[in-house]
Amino acid sequence: MYIEVNREIQLVRRPSGIPVPEDFRIVTTPISVLKDGEVLIKNSWMSVDPYMRGRMLDRKSYIEPFALNETLSGGAVGQVMESSNPKFPVGSKVANMNGWREYFTTEGSDLQPLPETEIPDQAFLGVLGMPGMTAFTGLTKVARIKEGDTVFVSAASGAVGAIVCQIAKLKGCFVVGSVGSEEKAQYLKTELGIDAVVNYKTTENLQESISQACPQGIDVYFENVGGEHLEAVLNLMNDYGRIAVCGMIDQYNVTSPKAGPTNLSQIIIKKLTIQGFIIFDHWNEYPAFVTQMTQWIQQGKITAKETVYEGIEQATEAFIGLFTGKNIGKMLVKLS
Amino acid sequence: MYIEVNREIQLVRRPSGIPVPEDFRIVTTPISVLKDGEVLIKNSWMSVDPYMRGRMLDRKSYIEPFALNETLSGGAVGQVMESSNPKFPVGSKVANMNGWREYFTTEGSDLQPLPETEIPDQAFLGVLGMPGMTAFTGLTKVARIKEGDTVFVSAASGAVGAIVCQIAKLKGCFVVGSVGSEEKAQYLKTELGIDAVVNYKTTENLQESISQACPQGIDVYFENVGGEHLEAVLNLMNDYGRIAVCGMIDQYNVTSPKAGPTNLSQIIIKKLTIQGFIIFDHWNEYPAFVTQMTQWIQQGKITAKETVYEGIEQATEAFIGLFTGKNIGKMLVKLS
Repeated sequence: MYIEVNREIQLVRRPSGIPVPEDFRIVTTPISVLKDGEVLIKNSWMSVDPYMRGRMLDRKSYIEPFALNETLSGGAVGQVMESSNPKFPVGSKVANMNGWREYFTTEGSDLQPLPETEIPDQAFLGVLGMPGMTAFTGLTKVARIKEGDTVFVSAASGAVGAIVCQIAKLKGCFVVGSVGSEEKAQYLKTELGIDAVVNYKTTENLQESISQACPQGIDVYFENVGGEHLEAVLNLMNDYGRIAVCGMIDQYNVTSPKAGPTNLSQIIIKKLTIQGFIIFDHWNEYPAFVTQMTQWIQQGKITAKETVYEGIEQATEAFIGLFTGKNIGKMLVKLS
Repeated sequence: MYIEVNREIQLVRRPSGIPVPEDFRIVTTPISVLKDGEVLIKNSWMSVDPYMRGRMLDRKSYIEPFALNETLSGGAVGQVMESSNPKFPVGSKVANMNGWREYFTTEGSDLQPLPETEIPDQAFLGVLGMPGMTAFTGLTKVARIKEGDTVFVSAASGAVGAIVCQIAKLKGCFVVGSVGSEEKAQYLKTELGIDAVVNYKTTENLQESISQACPQGIDVYFENVGGEHLEAVLNLMNDYGRIAVCGMIDQYNVTSPKAGPTNLSQIIIKKLTIQGFIIFDHWNEYPAFVTQMTQWIQQGKITAKETVYEGIEQATEAFIGLFTGKNIGKMLVKLS
């Protein structure tokens, strides 16, 4: 037995608007004694992702809501500390969906062994994990990008957006992103080399700025934001354009219903296809994705920036930071 | 030469809101003398369709705007009265896009000969024409209906909607429509035999009424209306639902931008596909459609109701009536 105790984060109140620290609490629990066949995992990294905000509401959705006064969950990577399951020897590394806690025990059916690569473990929460897979699937399978397309990406410097930008460039697209700070704009332009960036916080006319940045119109919109972005983009889409709807972060923290775009008739006029998707539906293609993405990373064609908060006591701040523009690239919590 | 003169309808002012008679004028012109190779057509029926409202605006769209002080155009069927073109002998019947006028001359490249059937000529403006083809394509190709789907149709008693209802029933779907009068509701229930009808004008809660009429949720929405209908339906769609966007008649006469649905995030939650389409893009499949639809009509499986105004001087009223609920089935103008 380890002398450490486990710390985990619980939801104590359903957030109204942008979550605040008081919606959460940190609790300390003893680490369970292993039963036969079980393993003890110590998480080394945990993920915070915008989709978790939806699970904090008590509503029917594609995934169960989080229960109050119970420990949150989400993606994490960790290491086997003790084992009475020969499939998971001590020291082996695993991805799991038991984030928001430092330790847990399991018989192992919910663990995915990490492949042996030189890529850091936490990449499996970002570029090689759900966000990377979301970017890849949304672009190639949902939006069916092709060489020469103009691809516009909102929240373009986020965990998903930054990978979308890079894959679209690799595929020969003209890539334009929107972000909320000059630092993020610089990252996209200088480090990722995309074609143009719009700072939606400083522009006086979002549609006009996007229009200038996309002189050939928009063939594919990778939608992470919703709201005013969607309205502007609808007016700028080319005929037969495709909108892959990954997220609408603009809507996640509204406290009263927010009116939608006034111009949905553009869907007819331009013969658009708008398709929502949830990455879990495509998970059977994850192994092929990992192979492709690992190659791109090793060839230096895709890079992945991270924003790291240290310690589980920072997890709540990291999560809140997703909605206040704090991250460039993947937002992660490094557990001690 | 005939002693008659030609009458035609021109647009003299771009309508604001629902069109009014003063937006149009009727003009009398002499009938041109035939040049070599030309034919003289007398239109017997002309079509008025909601999409024409969009062409009355001065904006970029999938089709050129109507010019002011020029004659409108649209679908029509007629007969060759004089001919110096052997391809179109006197007495032969043709479909054409030169509606809103009684006579015209042409060298013939814009004429489609009507096939020999016992089906009345004007069916080629409705069930066997653009509206029927729109219903068929939207359901089978865009929304990809399958047996057992619940299909919800707005403007369900209109030229397109009533055909949508019948094809969906033929394909083994559970079919629910919304309409704006009891007479229309009766037509759908008793004559077309659809499963349930919602009268959106008398219900106090549109979403609740649609929900009760669709106990299994909605798999396919054939969208003719937009606005409040779309918002209600988004909340009731099943996972992987498809929305074929044919029209948004709710938006055609707005004088200031009308807010869209507040719940577009349902697109993600339910992994919906929303696709706009314009029937002209699918016109290469028209011959196959005519074969199939003719068979259905001859077998008595599809019936087509018409609302007929008499005389070109009634064309404007017929057109305006599209937006004030005047038609059941296809709205037509019979030319004398």
